[in-house]
Amino acid sequence: MSSNQPLFASERRDSSTHSEERAAQEDTALLGGQRPDESPPRRSAKFWREVGLFTWAVLATAAVLVLAVVLHNQAAHHGGKKAKPSGKRNLIFMVSDGMGPASLSLSRSFRQYQSVLPRDDILVLDQHFIGSSRTRSTSSLVTDSAAGATAFSCGLKSYNGAISVLPDYTPCGTVLEAAKKAGYKTGLVVTTSVTDATPASFAAHANYRQEEDLIAQQEVGEHPLGRVVDLILGGGRCHFLPNTTSGSCRGDDRDITKLAQEKYGWNYIDSKQDFDSLEGAVKLPLLGLFADYNFPFELDRRNMDDKYPSLDEMAQTALRALEAATQDSDKGFFLMIEGSRIDHAGHGNDPAAQVNEVLAYDKAFASVVKFLERSNTQGVLVATSDHETGGLSVARHWELVPSGELSPSYPGYHWYPEVLANASSSAEHSARRLRSHISNGGDKLKDFVSEELVQEGLGIMDATDAEIKNALDNPEVSHYIFADMISRRARIGWSTHGHSAVDVNIYGSSGSDPLRGNHENTEVGNFLADYLGLDIDAITDELVKKSSDFSINSMGGAPWTGQIPTEEMLQSMEMTHGMVHEMEP
Amino acid sequence: MSSNQPLFASERRDSSTHSEERAAQEDTALLGGQRPDESPPRRSAKFWREVGLFTWAVLATAAVLVLAVVLHNQAAHHGGKKAKPSGKRNLIFMVSDGMGPASLSLSRSFRQYQSVLPRDDILVLDQHFIGSSRTRSTSSLVTDSAAGATAFSCGLKSYNGAISVLPDYTPCGTVLEAAKKAGYKTGLVVTTSVTDATPASFAAHANYRQEEDLIAQQEVGEHPLGRVVDLILGGGRCHFLPNTTSGSCRGDDRDITKLAQEKYGWNYIDSKQDFDSLEGAVKLPLLGLFADYNFPFELDRRNMDDKYPSLDEMAQTALRALEAATQDSDKGFFLMIEGSRIDHAGHGNDPAAQVNEVLAYDKAFASVVKFLERSNTQGVLVATSDHETGGLSVARHWELVPSGELSPSYPGYHWYPEVLANASSSAEHSARRLRSHISNGGDKLKDFVSEELVQEGLGIMDATDAEIKNALDNPEVSHYIFADMISRRARIGWSTHGHSAVDVNIYGSSGSDPLRGNHENTEVGNFLADYLGLDIDAITDELVKKSSDFSINSMGGAPWTGQIPTEEMLQSMEMTHGMVHEMEP
Repeated sequence: MSSNQPLFASERRDSSTHSEERAAQEDTALLGGQRPDESPPRRSAKFWREVGLFTWAVLATAAVLVLAVVLHNQAAHHGGKKAKPSGKRNLIFMVSDGMGPASLSLSRSFRQYQSVLPRDDILVLDQHFIGSSRTRSTSSLVTDSAAGATAFSCGLKSYNGAISVLPDYTPCGTVLEAAKKAGYKTGLVVTTSVTDATPASFAAHANYRQEEDLIAQQEVGEHPLGRVVDLILGGGRCHFLPNTTSGSCRGDDRDITKLAQEKYGWNYIDSKQDFDSLEGAVKLPLLGLFADYNFPFELDRRNMDDKYPSLDEMAQTALRALEAATQDSDKGFFLMIEGSRIDHAGHGNDPAAQVNEVLAYDKAFASVVKFLERSNTQGVLVATSDHETGGLSVARHWELVPSGELSPSYPGYHWYPEVLANASSSAEHSARRLRSHISNGGDKLKDFVSEELVQEGLGIMDATDAEIKNALDNPEVSHYIFADMISRRARIGWSTHGHSAVDVNIYGSSGSDPLRGNHENTEVGNFLADYLGLDIDAITDELVKKSSDFSINSMGGAPWTGQIPTEEMLQSMEMTHGMVHEMEP
Repeated sequence: MSSNQPLFASERRDSSTHSEERAAQEDTALLGGQRPDESPPRRSAKFWREVGLFTWAVLATAAVLVLAVVLHNQAAHHGGKKAKPSGKRNLIFMVSDGMGPASLSLSRSFRQYQSVLPRDDILVLDQHFIGSSRTRSTSSLVTDSAAGATAFSCGLKSYNGAISVLPDYTPCGTVLEAAKKAGYKTGLVVTTSVTDATPASFAAHANYRQEEDLIAQQEVGEHPLGRVVDLILGGGRCHFLPNTTSGSCRGDDRDITKLAQEKYGWNYIDSKQDFDSLEGAVKLPLLGLFADYNFPFELDRRNMDDKYPSLDEMAQTALRALEAATQDSDKGFFLMIEGSRIDHAGHGNDPAAQVNEVLAYDKAFASVVKFLERSNTQGVLVATSDHETGGLSVARHWELVPSGELSPSYPGYHWYPEVLANASSSAEHSARRLRSHISNGGDKLKDFVSEELVQEGLGIMDATDAEIKNALDNPEVSHYIFADMISRRARIGWSTHGHSAVDVNIYGSSGSDPLRGNHENTEVGNFLADYLGLDIDAITDELVKKSSDFSINSMGGAPWTGQIPTEEMLQSMEMTHGMVHEMEP
């Protein structure tokens, strides 16, 4: 390039179209030089050099802006912390209680078998798999749901049995409480008791998870921060009803449903009819309790659709209600949705119940994904488990099959989803029917077990006499016997009726990238608070400060977080938790 | 800004230091204007405007370049396909045979206990966790290692027992073969027989994995494509030695070590001394066979360090040798490293052996990460498992503890790494010592078992008489008995001596992003081929074309891929595979 030629301007220099002339005039005007109409008709070399330089500078600056925007968007997609969302946002946190990695392979292959799908047909969860979570608590390498949920709600490790309290028995602020205080709407949707460990850890504080009466009170508003939840859907009505009522499991005669409505303004519904009539307008705060204890397993619930909403139906209703309630707000909502009874199917070692629980959870997960896709408000879905339950493995010794004709050490490289597909009733439901039949006189008991429960319910056509006799002789543990009959035939293994220490999966929508990879469960909790820009520590401070003054009616002088559990109480807790869902009437 | 002021230049204009004057002069010179020494002492407004414009343009252009580089790097880090590497590159693929998700939690907590590390101290693997792999084969929901390795090597699903052949018994080209043909150096490093399913599937083709004699021949070069491997380190020497020799397990009297050296130019070594003397210069092709069958478990090997190199030592030697051999090449290398015996610890249900196998694998993984970090050649590490083995779960019923004083249905929320830390011998090794002691006369047999094997070896001080008697009465399955004694005390559960269907973890270094999330195992294989830019289909075509003409000595007219297995052979294969590592002398 010869001297005196402006950079990049050679082409324009050779042209003289009207539009380019005007562009040059405007450039000059922008530069603050002479007005166009005052300029001489012929341009000097210096003028053209300036025009060229200016064009270069403008183009380069434009490129900077474009690249900066691209980078910013990439950071928002991949980076996380760099691109902390600002403005209105929604956060949905899903918990698959007790779902370990083996449950996914089990449920995916079951679904492929049952729905005749190709082997590359995968769950919606699979499509959003991003990482795994380490689950140990402060008191054990094997966590319970209370310590697990506290890691999510407070972002802190605590002991098995702790409902958002720390090992020194002081309360820790939760993401739900902080969200509420920051102006978000909040919700809890579960298929177990709403006072059970997972939901409780978001909206209550208790030194001992069994204090479900206390937790019910805190959840409706007898809480140092007042009412912190705007929507609660699930089971566990018995903890809200006075012990003078049938269907109550409270220790006292307080009516918490009445307290909720009269003192804290809750709209209370307790039936599927009420739930169905919510279509359209949902007035918050809404307390919906649809079962005395747990919902039935999905495998059984589908035959009682008039009595219990599905997890997906509740999730969709919650999303709609919270979205409507925050329509005119500059804050969105925080919603926790739990597939609560995957855990119970694990405790019961019932693979047929479990696969249907997981698929129901997958369906609700898919609805949340769809909600986020169509929503005008930015939002994130994070889903994980608190721990694995049952020590599930998707393979089992053939030697354990009752017929036993194969070598005791022959390891079969198979499992059989068709066995699970044949079951139309959970082991729990079959056992309940057995006990009920016995207490109703036990007419033709053996035929009833053999035909109605085993053949029709469990779908097992080759039960041995010994198996039937075993169930007849032990009706109180017949749920384990029935579940074992299915597991053996499907070649599904279990190692415990409790929990195990395997890392659990993390799933997330776009925006959850900081949770890619392997994480401590507390990091999941920290992400939740970070995403909503919450100051959890401030809530902890407030709770601690208010603890000295705050007390709850009818607690008899105990602190508002309840009694501190003894070693014996904690041991009995683990045992009871493994059994409790079988004990219900 | 007033008119006639150059953009961005106001500060410079107000200053008159010598350096800034010179900078302005240089700017002018760069613009191709008058030489600085010819310029008048005072600058016109137009001059300053040009300087300002130029500065703006240069700064903006610099910003464009910086942002473009940042974007490119981000794309390379996050995008994967967008940033397919070009030029020389290395690929290391690691296989943790039989390692399921539960093994990680087990080994991590064991290490924390044994080395007194905090609970957030994690494995190097954990730090590189990126996804999970679905493992089913064409013949079963539960794969074996042959179909699993074929998914990696060919990127295609096949039946259990298939060594890189398809369900129609035609060979499929492998990533290793394609890499070799494309000019890469290739290597296989394992701690089992180099003829076992995983290494075999990269360098051989057989309709039935038990054809290990045939596989040995193909691996050294009796292969339609000639010699495709440059480095082989591992065990399984017995398949290379003529059956006229002690230490042979061949069906014929061919000496494959001699064939390898004389016909295909291999450097052959067969001792730890030979291995240690490799320091510095390694001449390829190198065949190193350090054990007749498998290496001992790491838990035992550490006491036989003079006889067997560790996985990490072999991996480091392989990396060094392949790096040196490709120093002047425009192609890098493909290396497969297998932690082979994690699988065997699973088959044996031996948690003490397993945690040490996993930690040895983690150490080798860390060495590969370090190698890639310091290498001048770009490269990627991908690591995954073919399947889970044992149905491992990190928790177990207390009822199964022999002392049995607890309720049969009490689910304990604990497991005890100290039990594993007390063991200084694998169950397999203890059983071998028992059988050896018996065949040597069995002097003071009960004391030997109780003191030397159980107390000293397994670290169990509270063995019951029934347990000791059980081992004494059943020496041929005493490895299972010993392993069970440890598992019960540590509260570790197993459901099978075979494999299970749980998804397995994927780990990767930077550049492995396409494997984030949940994938079919064949997608792992496809990534390997894509990363090296290989045309696997062309290799398949070549293999198929050459199949008709190609035959292998001493095969007696059978195709070069060996006989087609019957149903009975496949069943016996599964049983044998579960037991074979216990059967060795």
